[in-house]
Amino acid sequence: MNMTVNDFLISRKQTIEEALPLYIKNLSTPQILKDSMLYSLEAGGKRLRPVLVLALLHTYNKPEDTGLATACAIEMIHTYSLVHDDLPCMDDDDLRRGKPTNHKVFGEAIAVLAGDGLLTQSFSLIVNDPTVSVEKKLRLVAELVKSAGVEGMVGGQVADMEGEAKELSLEELQSIHENKTAKLLGFSILAGAILADAPEEDIEKLREFSYHIGIAFQIRDDILDIEGNQDKLGKPVGSDTLNEKTTYPSILSMQGAKDKLQDHIMQAKELLQHLTAKAQLLEQICDLIAKRDH
Amino acid sequence: MNMTVNDFLISRKQTIEEALPLYIKNLSTPQILKDSMLYSLEAGGKRLRPVLVLALLHTYNKPEDTGLATACAIEMIHTYSLVHDDLPCMDDDDLRRGKPTNHKVFGEAIAVLAGDGLLTQSFSLIVNDPTVSVEKKLRLVAELVKSAGVEGMVGGQVADMEGEAKELSLEELQSIHENKTAKLLGFSILAGAILADAPEEDIEKLREFSYHIGIAFQIRDDILDIEGNQDKLGKPVGSDTLNEKTTYPSILSMQGAKDKLQDHIMQAKELLQHLTAKAQLLEQICDLIAKRDH
Repeated sequence: MNMTVNDFLISRKQTIEEALPLYIKNLSTPQILKDSMLYSLEAGGKRLRPVLVLALLHTYNKPEDTGLATACAIEMIHTYSLVHDDLPCMDDDDLRRGKPTNHKVFGEAIAVLAGDGLLTQSFSLIVNDPTVSVEKKLRLVAELVKSAGVEGMVGGQVADMEGEAKELSLEELQSIHENKTAKLLGFSILAGAILADAPEEDIEKLREFSYHIGIAFQIRDDILDIEGNQDKLGKPVGSDTLNEKTTYPSILSMQGAKDKLQDHIMQAKELLQHLTAKAQLLEQICDLIAKRDH
Repeated sequence: MNMTVNDFLISRKQTIEEALPLYIKNLSTPQILKDSMLYSLEAGGKRLRPVLVLALLHTYNKPEDTGLATACAIEMIHTYSLVHDDLPCMDDDDLRRGKPTNHKVFGEAIAVLAGDGLLTQSFSLIVNDPTVSVEKKLRLVAELVKSAGVEGMVGGQVADMEGEAKELSLEELQSIHENKTAKLLGFSILAGAILADAPEEDIEKLREFSYHIGIAFQIRDDILDIEGNQDKLGKPVGSDTLNEKTTYPSILSMQGAKDKLQDHIMQAKELLQHLTAKAQLLEQICDLIAKRDH
């Protein structure tokens, strides 16, 4: 394990966690709504998506402050999606990262509205960021909508529900995860690159890169649901098997899934070789995604 | 009843209703999600919010096409809020405009996601509108977030729930309705004015105007819940009394509420006198809001 990348991840996770509540605390809105949004925003997690924004700015040797608002916006979107996914009418989860889920604490109605509020507020962070040009902000909003909305995460969630307890082909599975997980993860990378003024040819390569990283991330998730450690994951293992969900190991066998994971990581790393910037940090993040235990 | 304003409202309602589905139909996303979004978008209603955008462009003698995408975005936001409000954990309504509510047809999970999708997609309509400048689009998104989000509609919905079955003061009631109803209605007016390149002093007057119109709209709503005709409204009357909700008539008496309604309409009309444009159409819309029966 390389110390540099770990130091980076730990310190930037802290930066994000310090910044996130500041975007909520002073809003003029009922206290219970703020409490509910803060509860889920402060529930922890890897903060991988926002940290990736900062990692891209770091890669292109640009000040990371200019990515902070967009990074927090992405974490808000990710958090809203978890709050809505946990609802009784969706996954009906009582625990998230070892803590009671939002609706268990605040009730379903507030959980729905906290999700709606986080989603709407995330756009405010981007458009009201004084450090970013008007053109870039507009590009960020357009890309965010594509990743998080009907043609991205929301559509992926619907396809995932539709595919439950059905036998899916590898292509169908891949398409679900591309929309449900890879696109928002990819937006983090793209947003960081846009904010860093990366050349357009780099941005196109990073778009491909983020696809491989997103799929690799999901394969690792499926593997961890079988081989993972419940304490490290903060959630029970074996739920996919229990729910008869199609996963990469269920289609490809465990070894096949592991091979595919390595293949996507290799392709991702290969793309990094052709950027105009030196991308050691991103390479190391690739390795971490392949090996993560939570 | 003036024919001109009615003709305007009817023809523009049709324009909106023809345009709305076009923003959904070609999206690359699961069919059930599209069906669910379209179901609620096509469920009818007055289309007052989007028509107001076009009315402002008309008032400033500008082509109305440039307001179409923003107008439809507002109707999407309004529709998402209805879909989420109708959920069992919120108002638990089975009927909306005489038709089964979204979750009754598509299930709760899809209704939550259709709402999320409509909300996210609405931003896409604005930022991808080729007829509007980058600066204006950004201003529209910033204003929309303030009206529809945590400090606007979503916050008002939470405050409304918190205030249920409680005795509210007139100030508390006013603040709830300002956030829950008046701000999004106000955004329609503001957005139309911004798109029409109205002078900033007009925009400030229209901000005040929309506050009065929004409150007048809500007072009329409360009056109709007592004196209205169930068939024309498309929903049962008397529900506020049944749910012991604080309303304008319950605080001010019916006559007091009617006087207050007239007072807001008068103040709204007075503001119109000081615009740089001739605002007969908006005056007539004021009268319609004061007298509407559905």
